[in-house]
Amino acid sequence: MMLKVEHIGIAVKDLAISVPLFEKLLNSQCYKTESVESELVNTAFLKSGETKIELLESSVENGIISKFIEKKGEGIHHIAFEVEDIEVEMERLKNEGFILLNDKPKAGADNKLVCFLHPKNTNGVLIELCMERK
Amino acid sequence: MMLKVEHIGIAVKDLAISVPLFEKLLNSQCYKTESVESELVNTAFLKSGETKIELLESSVENGIISKFIEKKGEGIHHIAFEVEDIEVEMERLKNEGFILLNDKPKAGADNKLVCFLHPKNTNGVLIELCMERK
Repeated sequence: MMLKVEHIGIAVKDLAISVPLFEKLLNSQCYKTESVESELVNTAFLKSGETKIELLESSVENGIISKFIEKKGEGIHHIAFEVEDIEVEMERLKNEGFILLNDKPKAGADNKLVCFLHPKNTNGVLIELCMERK
Repeated sequence: MMLKVEHIGIAVKDLAISVPLFEKLLNSQCYKTESVESELVNTAFLKSGETKIELLESSVENGIISKFIEKKGEGIHHIAFEVEDIEVEMERLKNEGFILLNDKPKAGADNKLVCFLHPKNTNGVLIELCMERK
């Protein structure tokens, strides 16, 4: 089951610039930063209602986020939906014809297990499923 | 005050294709469609927790949404934050240096008053402020 929009991921060049910018925009303080080695990103989180805004900065020169920005510029990178049971949801979506970018749930930021869907089957929107690790 | 992510707007070529796609993806039924003459768009809404997914299809050949798709392809078009008082929030953001795309709140879909912020000051993200019309 899909529960809610857990977060919206936004690709930025420089957290030192973008964190204060989003703090002003949302009138809300960044409450957490975290580096995710496996994804080569530094992240910063703000809250808006039940949804988080996750700012994503590449931690290396040729990381996924720097390549995204090179191609498309800074902007929204993905939408993450919280699911009740990630394996059940992955199976359901695979059977509906969506393409999973990882076969098994993998470790993401913010103590989550995550799976991405290929954007070619989702109207160009990169979708993440995520579930709190127990 | 910013309250929550009210909706995420997604630009699509054809609602007849994208509505069933997002119904499958979110495992949730589209509960409303609406044409907004002033914006030259047809919209369709689905729910995910307290946030709506708003699919946007151009109702004319050279509308804002068809131009967006021509340039960037289908995908996320904007994020809308619900605000308590739109005029207060517009004033606050103008004073913070953000650029408002309309001077006064204007009528949007879903019985809302809305205002957009220029994406050049928001990390390339088109931001909408919205408030239920009373």
